[in-house]
Amino acid sequence: RYGYFGRGVSMMFCRVSGCLTDGKIFLSVSGEDSVSIHTRDIAGLRMLQKDDVKVVLLISKEDLLMKSLITKLETMTGCEVMMVGEEPLKDVQSLVEKKKLDWKDVAYMGNDTLDASCLKLAGLSAVPADAPPNAAQAAKYTCKNAGGGGAVRDFVEHVLLQKEQAKAQMKQDRIDRNNF
Amino acid sequence: RYGYFGRGVSMMFCRVSGCLTDGKIFLSVSGEDSVSIHTRDIAGLRMLQKDDVKVVLLISKEDLLMKSLITKLETMTGCEVMMVGEEPLKDVQSLVEKKKLDWKDVAYMGNDTLDASCLKLAGLSAVPADAPPNAAQAAKYTCKNAGGGGAVRDFVEHVLLQKEQAKAQMKQDRIDRNNF
Amino acid sequence: RYGYFGRGVSMMFCRVSGCLTDGKIFLSVSGEDSVSIHTRDIAGLRMLQKDDVKVVLLISKEDLLMKSLITKLETMTGCEVMMVGEEPLKDVQSLVEKKKLDWKDVAYMGNDTLDASCLKLAGLSAVPADAPPNAAQAAKYTCKNAGGGGAVRDFVEHVLLQKEQAKAQMKQDRIDRNNF
Amino acid sequence: RYGYFGRGVSMMFCRVSGCLTDGKIFLSVSGEDSVSIHTRDIAGLRMLQKDDVKVVLLISKEDLLMKSLITKLETMTGCEVMMVGEEPLKDVQSLVEKKKLDWKDVAYMGNDTLDASCLKLAGLSAVPADAPPNAAQAAKYTCKNAGGGGAVRDFVEHVLLQKEQAKAQMKQDRIDRNNF
Repeated sequence: RYGYFGRGVSMMFCRVSGCLTDGKIFLSVSGEDSVSIHTRDIAGLRMLQKDDVKVVLLISKEDLLMKSLITKLETMTGCEVMMVGEEPLKDVQSLVEKKKLDWKDVAYMGNDTLDASCLKLAGLSAVPADAPPNAAQAAKYTCKNAGGGGAVRDFVEHVLLQKEQAKAQMKQDRIDRNNF
Repeated sequence: RYGYFGRGVSMMFCRVSGCLTDGKIFLSVSGEDSVSIHTRDIAGLRMLQKDDVKVVLLISKEDLLMKSLITKLETMTGCEVMMVGEEPLKDVQSLVEKKKLDWKDVAYMGNDTLDASCLKLAGLSAVPADAPPNAAQAAKYTCKNAGGGGAVRDFVEHVLLQKEQAKAQMKQDRIDRNNF
Repeated sequence: RYGYFGRGVSMMFCRVSGCLTDGKIFLSVSGEDSVSIHTRDIAGLRMLQKDDVKVVLLISKEDLLMKSLITKLETMTGCEVMMVGEEPLKDVQSLVEKKKLDWKDVAYMGNDTLDASCLKLAGLSAVPADAPPNAAQAAKYTCKNAGGGGAVRDFVEHVLLQKEQAKAQMKQDRIDRNNF
Repeated sequence: RYGYFGRGVSMMFCRVSGCLTDGKIFLSVSGEDSVSIHTRDIAGLRMLQKDDVKVVLLISKEDLLMKSLITKLETMTGCEVMMVGEEPLKDVQSLVEKKKLDWKDVAYMGNDTLDASCLKLAGLSAVPADAPPNAAQAAKYTCKNAGGGGAVRDFVEHVLLQKEQAKAQMKQDRIDRNNF
C-alpha cells in the first residue's frame, strides 16, 4: 500500500506526428514543407517540465520532414527529440533502463498501432481523440481533443493531476503511519 | 441608476493566440512559420475602431513567432500590439490606469487560465467557444465560434450591441429626468 | 407565364473571401501570406463557364492580399476578378447595366452583411453554410457546405439545375402554344 | 465457387486531389502553392505496397500544381503517379490491360463524378466520407474519414482485410477439395 503511486511520473514520451501535430503535412513545390502544432500543447509541455517531468518527443526515423524540424521543435518546446524505429518500445526501453526508471513512472502518448506496446507498459498513457481503435484500446486514457488540437495539453493536465493526487496520498500515508 | 452602463466600452484588449488565431502554428524547415487569422475577425476589429473603441492586441513576451508578426498584425487590423508577461493583468492594469479608464468600460477577450483575472475585472469579457473551462468560467460571455474562426467578431458584435443599449438607456434616463 | 424564368442565368458574381475561401489568411513573417481554395469549387466555376455563364469574382478594394492574388485566381478559375467597395451593389449594378442584363438573370454569392442588397436583387443568390444570419436571410439559398469547402460548387449545381429546369419549361411552353 | 475472390487485389488506383488531399490548395503570392496530405494515409499506402499491391496515384492533366508535386509525391509515398484526362477510365483501362489484370482484382478510390465509371468497374472501390452523392453511389465502400484526413488509410485497411479473407477462403476451398 505504501508507495502505491511510486514517486509519480518523472518522464513522458510523446509522438510528434498525430499527437503534437494533426498528422497533416503541407507540401509545397520548392520543398518548404510544413506541419502545424498548437500553442496550447506547447504550453502544456512546458508545464510538465516545470513540474520536473522530462519530456522526450518521438519521431519516426523514416520521417524526413520531422527530422528537418528537430532543432525547431526542441527550441519551441524545450523538449529533447528522439528518433524511433518501427518498434518504438525498443528505443524507449533502452532509455527507460538507462535512466533506471520504472515503467509505472513513465507517461506515454502515441497514436498508432506501433505505439500499442508502450501504451500498455506505461503507468500513464494516452491517445488523441482521433486515434485509430487499436491504439485507443491499448491506452489508459483517451484525450478529449484531437491530435494537433490540444490532445497533448489534455494528457499533460491528466498527468499533473495524477502526480498531485499521488503526493496527497503519500502525505496521507505518512500521517497514517505516524498515527499508528 | 444614472450612468449605470457608464459611457460604454472605450477600450478592448484581445489575445492574439487562440482568440484571433486558432492557436495553430505552421512550422516549416527554413523558418518561415505562419499562423492564420480570419477576415471576418479583422473586419470586426475595424468595426470597433470606427465606433471609437481603441483595440489593443496582446501577445506573449515569450512568443517569438508572434513578435515577428507585430508589424503585419498592426497593418492588417489597425490595432496596437502590446506584449504581456505571465500575468497579463499587470501589463493591462498599468495601461488602464494611464488612460484613466474604469475597468467596467474595458472589454477583454482571452482564452487561457492566465487571462482569468482580467476576464473577471473587465466590464465585458469573452472567451472563444473552444477555450478551456477555467478561462470560460471567468468570462462573462462565451463566443459561438472558435478562436481564429469568428470568435473575435462574435464578441465585437456583443460589445457594439451593449454600447448601443447603454446609449439608449442614457437617452431614456434623460427623458425620465426631464419628465420628472 | 411565357418567359417566366427568362433565358436563365447568364452571369454570376461570387465573393472570393469567405465563399471561395474559408476566410482564413495565413500570415508568415516574410510576407508570403496565403489563402486556401477548394479544387471542387474551381471545377464548379469551370462547369458554369462551359454552360455559358460568365463568372465574376469579387474582392474588396481594401484586401491587399487578395489584390496580389488576382492573376493567380484568374488563371486558376478562368474567371474575371473585379474589385468592389464597401457597397458592392454600386459596382455590380454598373456592370449589370453595361451588359444589359436583368437582375433576375444574375446569380450572386456572398457571405457578409455588405452583400445583402445584391443577394436580395439577384434572381438566384446564395450564402455558404457558415455565413452570418443577416447575410443568410437576404439570400434565396443556403449552401450545404461552408466557404472554401465546397459552398461555391453547391451553388453552381443549384444554378445549373435551375437553368435546366428553365429550358425544360420553355420547351413545354412552346409545345403548349403549338397545341393551342 | 473456386477462385471466387480471384487471387485478390494486386493493383490500386487512387485520386490524389480530394482523396489523398482534402481538396484545398493554399495559394501564396509568389507561387509557392501547397496542399496537405496525412501521414496516416502515407503509412497506409506503404502498407499496401508491402502486401504486394502496386499503387498508382492519379492526378488530373489540367492540375498544374499537382503536376509540379509529382516527384515529391512519388518519394513520399513510394507510389507511381499517372496523369489522367476528363475520363479517367480510358487511361486506367489501358494500364489494366497492359498489366493483364481483371477489373475484379483492381481497387479504385475516387471522389468525383468523373470517377464513377472506374468506381463501378473495380472489384473494390471507395470514396471519402465527404464525396459528392453521385460519386458515393458508384462506389462499393464509403470511408469513415474525409479526404486528406485518413480516408485512404480506411480504404487500405478495407482492401487488406478483403485480401486476407480471400486467402482464408482459398485455403478453406483447398481443404474442402481434399476432403471430398
